[in-house]
Amino acid sequence: MKDLTPNSWEARAEGASLYGFTDYPTLAERGTTVLARGEGPYVVDTDGNRFLDANAGLWNMVAGWDHRGLIRAAQEQYERLPGYHAFFGRMSDRTVELSEKLVEVSPFERGRVFYTNSGSEANDTLVKMLWFLNRMEGRPEARKILTRVNAYHGVTAVSASMTGKPYNDVFGLPLPGFIHLTCPHYWREAREGESEAQFVRRLARELEEVIAREGADTIAGFVAEPVMGAGGAIPPAEGYFQAVQPILRKHGIPLIADEVITGFGRTGEPWGCESYGFTPDAIIASKAMTAGYFPMGAVILGPELADRLFAASAEFTDFPHGFTASGHPVGCAVALKAAEVILEGADGDEPLIENVRRTMPLFAEGMDRLARHPNIGEARYRGTMGALEAVADRETKAPFAADLQVSERIANACHDVGLICRPLGQAVVLCPPFIMTPAQFDEMFGKLEKALGSVFDAVA
Amino acid sequence: MKDLTPNSWEARAEGASLYGFTDYPTLAERGTTVLARGEGPYVVDTDGNRFLDANAGLWNMVAGWDHRGLIRAAQEQYERLPGYHAFFGRMSDRTVELSEKLVEVSPFERGRVFYTNSGSEANDTLVKMLWFLNRMEGRPEARKILTRVNAYHGVTAVSASMTGKPYNDVFGLPLPGFIHLTCPHYWREAREGESEAQFVRRLARELEEVIAREGADTIAGFVAEPVMGAGGAIPPAEGYFQAVQPILRKHGIPLIADEVITGFGRTGEPWGCESYGFTPDAIIASKAMTAGYFPMGAVILGPELADRLFAASAEFTDFPHGFTASGHPVGCAVALKAAEVILEGADGDEPLIENVRRTMPLFAEGMDRLARHPNIGEARYRGTMGALEAVADRETKAPFAADLQVSERIANACHDVGLICRPLGQAVVLCPPFIMTPAQFDEMFGKLEKALGSVFDAVA
Repeated sequence: MKDLTPNSWEARAEGASLYGFTDYPTLAERGTTVLARGEGPYVVDTDGNRFLDANAGLWNMVAGWDHRGLIRAAQEQYERLPGYHAFFGRMSDRTVELSEKLVEVSPFERGRVFYTNSGSEANDTLVKMLWFLNRMEGRPEARKILTRVNAYHGVTAVSASMTGKPYNDVFGLPLPGFIHLTCPHYWREAREGESEAQFVRRLARELEEVIAREGADTIAGFVAEPVMGAGGAIPPAEGYFQAVQPILRKHGIPLIADEVITGFGRTGEPWGCESYGFTPDAIIASKAMTAGYFPMGAVILGPELADRLFAASAEFTDFPHGFTASGHPVGCAVALKAAEVILEGADGDEPLIENVRRTMPLFAEGMDRLARHPNIGEARYRGTMGALEAVADRETKAPFAADLQVSERIANACHDVGLICRPLGQAVVLCPPFIMTPAQFDEMFGKLEKALGSVFDAVA
Repeated sequence: MKDLTPNSWEARAEGASLYGFTDYPTLAERGTTVLARGEGPYVVDTDGNRFLDANAGLWNMVAGWDHRGLIRAAQEQYERLPGYHAFFGRMSDRTVELSEKLVEVSPFERGRVFYTNSGSEANDTLVKMLWFLNRMEGRPEARKILTRVNAYHGVTAVSASMTGKPYNDVFGLPLPGFIHLTCPHYWREAREGESEAQFVRRLARELEEVIAREGADTIAGFVAEPVMGAGGAIPPAEGYFQAVQPILRKHGIPLIADEVITGFGRTGEPWGCESYGFTPDAIIASKAMTAGYFPMGAVILGPELADRLFAASAEFTDFPHGFTASGHPVGCAVALKAAEVILEGADGDEPLIENVRRTMPLFAEGMDRLARHPNIGEARYRGTMGALEAVADRETKAPFAADLQVSERIANACHDVGLICRPLGQAVVLCPPFIMTPAQFDEMFGKLEKALGSVFDAVA
């Protein structure tokens, strides 16, 4: 199936590109899939093969690949002002409008927005904001950042340090001062006989102990995804945020919600923190913020942090930070439209979040059905994001041997029948676009079910 | 002049935005300039005021604000495939094409490209690549990065650590292991009676000494802008790169050119390293790469580093790094068009780099004329980027008192007559779009000359 004749797209791709987050053995065997166009939730490669993308690209293409409203918003802004920065007291009108809109749709009564080009940059920016703030307020030693094992916050050296994945060891990361607490994944992390409530209490005690050990005055913030994304689509144990937030409050440690994946409707509410009933001190946004139609991230500070950062910036005379394309007018025009399309309804269409809410039960039903397979240890999900965890033994939860590459094989089997899903550890992750019809849910689960069956027949 | 009536654009801007790299006292006095549209090298604010942007936005909008070819390239790609990632062995056709094009226009015979969303992310990625490579090749201790005082490489915690600016102290940066050598600015840094050749020899000796002190086997790379940008548009002393490169080669330390500002024609050649006669081991690109019409950066590895990174990635099974919008198809379509527009000539027009070459003498003439003012200590430039350094005393090179805010005042005086230029320390920096006509050069220098005169009359 791999075509490496000279001038084939595959040969050209391998000639001059470096591959990130790509399994090289699979690449060597199967070659590059070169994509040319999209239709709704489908993408089409240069050979005309059509794939239902059950991951919405990288969790981000929630409106699919041909949304007229978003395309027009970008095209029109290119006619007006195709670029500008947000330095030196200048910014575009679209940037002004988007800041207002983001605060309006945020869980905060008021707040302030700082723009970046990605979630990685937004998390990196957040950390620099906290370091700046603490230094200006006379607490320069308050620098440590708490996150969790399996957290994913990005790939800059600092956001990778926040990320709790073993592969970062190959970069010599995390940097000192980035501390990873236990992953709040009850199915995998609970001890023998431990109830979910006991598990949550243990994690809360661990947080207390880490704060006591490190010193509350050395800690700048606690950053958490409401549902962990690239860690494997892991919803937190019941009551987790209600257990940790009071501890953080007591010690004056800000709680920041990394809503890069959960923001803008994925869990059925505009923000994941709303689905889990807590209000953070700041939000990190990206991905669905532009429905993937433009690279953009944002730090949205709630009232207290916004006031403190504004005051500290004025005292220092400036906040010496910013990216060339921070608040790019085309990105802001696209994000304005995306907020309308997803949360409010645009051009006579219902808000996409309504379709998420309507199809969440279909998603749950499909996941639960596939979970009946004896080699699925857990189906976990919230809204329309979730994962099926493969196990060699359901009782002991023992995984398959790593060299069997079970999840890679499942994803490849899906690919061969026109479905894109994502292998992550021994899980298969699903996170379909918000525009999926019931028939497309059937297609997704039907193809995945066959792939699971054939792979488990081969390895189990 | 500041209008803070409710619902004015200025009041709305200050209501919900955080300002990066913005002087808060100036903001408090003059308010936000909210931009709505652009025409050639001019931008127009929401009140209809028109500004010649002598900084091309942030060095990046080299084709101005209404380039039909670039607008069409973006608009057309939005119709085809408005977003995709470059993970898991998948990428868009435009991404494949752009990698080929970037290697083709690079100084390298062959190479490989990794995409990011900004120059900051590209520098951060480069550092992670070097850490990864050294770890995989059995030299995990080779982590230190050498840059120079006044270097600007970005704002992520790592790229800010590479940056040699005093303001980074407020973040508790640089991180350990980022070492800043002397800025190769002959006018400011030379000792009494030291010739330019002696100055360069001294900087070369410093490099040798630092390598000896730190240990060559602890150093991962040396990163340098061919002409320093945000440090103050500083061309290196004559022969600087010819002096440092052999030392780096001798010790096996890669030399990386940060061409975020100098790349794609700014110095009259496609790359700044070509203007200065050296070939680096890798290039960092951004800004003019998309003419500012899309956020994008790239690490372009030359043959040796490309081969080594590809091999190390295969050995580790992947290179665990990448941004959601890495290789975004719209960004790639825009960058493909920008390379054509700037370097090759598109749609029957001459390449923009030809206009740079034709107008470089006008730029030099204007800078030299303004340098005759007794309060200009130095006019420095290369191609069409440069700076005029204000001094209280030309003989002693003594600057004005900092609280006079001379360069801010000059920039504000320019702003009041419809010219945007950038204050940087006590210098005023110019970096106009590549599309400027001789009449627009006259307008730029004429307005700046008057502003200089009025401010120097007031403070000198």
